[in-house]
Amino acid sequence: MSDTHSDSAPSVHDSSEDRLAGSASPDPGDAGLEWLAEGSVTAAAGFRAAGIHCGLKRSRPDLALIVADASVPAAGMFTTNRVQAAPVRYCREVLAGGRARALVVNSGNANACTGAQGERDAAEMALILATALGAEADEILVCSTGVIGRNLPMDVLRTGIPAAVEALSAAAESADAAARAIMTTDTVPKACACRVELGGGSVVVGGIAKGSGMVGPDLELAAQGGAAHATTLAFLTTDAVLEPTPLAAMLQRAAEGSFNSITVDGDTSTNDTLLLLASGASGVAAESAEDRLLLQRAISAVAQRLALAVVRDGEGATRVLRFDVSGAVDEGQARRVARSLANSPLIKTAFHAGEPNWGRLMMAVGKGDRGIDPDSIAIRVGGLEVVAGGMGTPHDAAELSRRMTTDEVVIEVELGLGAAAATMWTCDLSAEYVRINATYLT
Amino acid sequence: MSDTHSDSAPSVHDSSEDRLAGSASPDPGDAGLEWLAEGSVTAAAGFRAAGIHCGLKRSRPDLALIVADASVPAAGMFTTNRVQAAPVRYCREVLAGGRARALVVNSGNANACTGAQGERDAAEMALILATALGAEADEILVCSTGVIGRNLPMDVLRTGIPAAVEALSAAAESADAAARAIMTTDTVPKACACRVELGGGSVVVGGIAKGSGMVGPDLELAAQGGAAHATTLAFLTTDAVLEPTPLAAMLQRAAEGSFNSITVDGDTSTNDTLLLLASGASGVAAESAEDRLLLQRAISAVAQRLALAVVRDGEGATRVLRFDVSGAVDEGQARRVARSLANSPLIKTAFHAGEPNWGRLMMAVGKGDRGIDPDSIAIRVGGLEVVAGGMGTPHDAAELSRRMTTDEVVIEVELGLGAAAATMWTCDLSAEYVRINATYLT
Repeated sequence: MSDTHSDSAPSVHDSSEDRLAGSASPDPGDAGLEWLAEGSVTAAAGFRAAGIHCGLKRSRPDLALIVADASVPAAGMFTTNRVQAAPVRYCREVLAGGRARALVVNSGNANACTGAQGERDAAEMALILATALGAEADEILVCSTGVIGRNLPMDVLRTGIPAAVEALSAAAESADAAARAIMTTDTVPKACACRVELGGGSVVVGGIAKGSGMVGPDLELAAQGGAAHATTLAFLTTDAVLEPTPLAAMLQRAAEGSFNSITVDGDTSTNDTLLLLASGASGVAAESAEDRLLLQRAISAVAQRLALAVVRDGEGATRVLRFDVSGAVDEGQARRVARSLANSPLIKTAFHAGEPNWGRLMMAVGKGDRGIDPDSIAIRVGGLEVVAGGMGTPHDAAELSRRMTTDEVVIEVELGLGAAAATMWTCDLSAEYVRINATYLT
Repeated sequence: MSDTHSDSAPSVHDSSEDRLAGSASPDPGDAGLEWLAEGSVTAAAGFRAAGIHCGLKRSRPDLALIVADASVPAAGMFTTNRVQAAPVRYCREVLAGGRARALVVNSGNANACTGAQGERDAAEMALILATALGAEADEILVCSTGVIGRNLPMDVLRTGIPAAVEALSAAAESADAAARAIMTTDTVPKACACRVELGGGSVVVGGIAKGSGMVGPDLELAAQGGAAHATTLAFLTTDAVLEPTPLAAMLQRAAEGSFNSITVDGDTSTNDTLLLLASGASGVAAESAEDRLLLQRAISAVAQRLALAVVRDGEGATRVLRFDVSGAVDEGQARRVARSLANSPLIKTAFHAGEPNWGRLMMAVGKGDRGIDPDSIAIRVGGLEVVAGGMGTPHDAAELSRRMTTDEVVIEVELGLGAAAATMWTCDLSAEYVRINATYLT
């Protein structure tokens, strides 16, 4: 993560490496991973990036490129919202072939609910980039994020995309510029990369992401027909040698413990997109089962680190809440309960202010699934037991309030029914969320 | 509705009769119904009420009674949250017999997550009232609302309930005192009553309700095993002659278009309860099919008027939003889409400020159901067309903003798939909601 902020949106977040690598992400764990300082989407060999201002926004960067040296194996996961932006539909078609050469992303305009013109505009964005790169339009991925329902001003993209191609480089500054150019209400750019040693040598996995509001992703593979809650965009790269099929499988697994386990407001966007491109430039493949596990861990860890950065930078957020639900009869039950907790306005507001009202946790557990046994529930907040056997246990309300207001709060919920578990991350709900979303356009 | 406010919580709401009988409630309609000025839970013959301060709260009224002259047919619908407060469990048992004599309600303490002691306390509340009335404890209904997880201070109830019995009367002032005594974060008491002429004479239906936060009821009949989102309490009375079975059926139907069609924050409470008692004191039964329809209309209209009063007085609310979803393949789809719209923080915030961001409506429609066809969606806001064929239509953003900020906004969503429809009501989301819920205990 960069610790610098966009000039127009001062941040209240400490985005140091240590914060993201902290206690919130023991799973899938990063044992064997070496996190790279200023690591980002070009840390993996074979990728260049650029981020510029082309004129979709008044003055902030609004156009990013990520370009591989050649057409490479690629996979994508997309929003399950039935109202899908034109670029989402375009990407699904491109990825049917399992390969891509490059990605163009604009912020400031979602190109959603824009009909046939929107489809033509997404295709033209791809064609402009393909022409500038000497590639084919069906090798180009397209993403958009911003206001829904407005046609793209294609004139600025017709000059902007070639200008961005001129700026392409593998330098960390270019990757940082790309991370900034995809931001909407984000207050900090989000990027990371790690190196992992496989049997045949080391490979790198990196990425950038943006989120902030309309965040509650529920992503599905391009080949499926799925569900997402936010404009969450995340772009991962690796220089490992990976064929399209195992690459898609690894991306799907990484999404479960990262973007599909976070929510800011539970509102699934029309544009959510998660992409992974594998350049193969390291010449190293994951040949053994152990190598495949290590590579999966690296991809999952990068995805999770980016997803947590999205939560931490959620609109109006002042802290991260992690709900660890265990003792469920199956993972579906655990996830329903975790999601019920993470999307409850009453809980998110209570944790904003340190209101020691643990009864709201019981409410959300009870409404989360019909198979709950209220008398077997136990709850800890920041390690402090507040519920056992479905009843409140003696605790100091002031101490509970203190544990509710740390930078990152772990809420453990044991259902006492079985052995399945799930985790969801969210942020608190502040008056600032209302202010931001009451004045998004104005 | 009373137009006076609780002394400690000044209201921003105009709660005149005209507001509640306005355009938001054409369905089930009130043709043939005569609304009674200052009508409430004792407007129907055969009922007395009381509301007093007994000491659960510092100074505001906190204990209410509604008492029939004898054991009468009764039915109840309760939260489907699996974490159910002790009084909910107690009421379910009482109503297994289809009759009740009286109801005792306290505010300030939910008696939820209180274990075996909570069960004993609910039973003791019933016994105290039964003793004071010369009735049996299994004829007494018990409700609680307030903070979860604290044992009731039974000493104040042991003196308070007999004192409330002394205050019982059929006078409008007593009914108003009861409506005030059940309030938590409500800023105004909620009550209404209407008279309807049946073949054999006229009957009256009335009631009181409270809501404010943790409101998103999903009620089921006592005999079933069901789902609710709020502490919503509503108590209806009628002097019609009605046997338990048709009475329960009428209550269930009334709940669908009222309390099960509203949401403030989507959080289903542990305590939601809707009760209907029929004294038979009018001596008039609904003998014909037409009479049964008229009586159903009266019960439904009272329930809907009270439910809309709960929405209007939602925590931090400044306006009511009504989502009319039509053109669905079935009612389930219509309700899922309407609920997705009504629970979206991004939409509720946009309507708070008049942010003309109609794309958020498309987002919520698309995430509401997997069978949506984005290209067939049409949307009007306050009569202004903003979407047709899934795309934005030309409209003046300033005019849209004006229509989003009326006292009551009707949002029409046509899915273009079939003939089924559903309506959900909610309120806007303001920074005041966060303030209220960040300081509920303190």
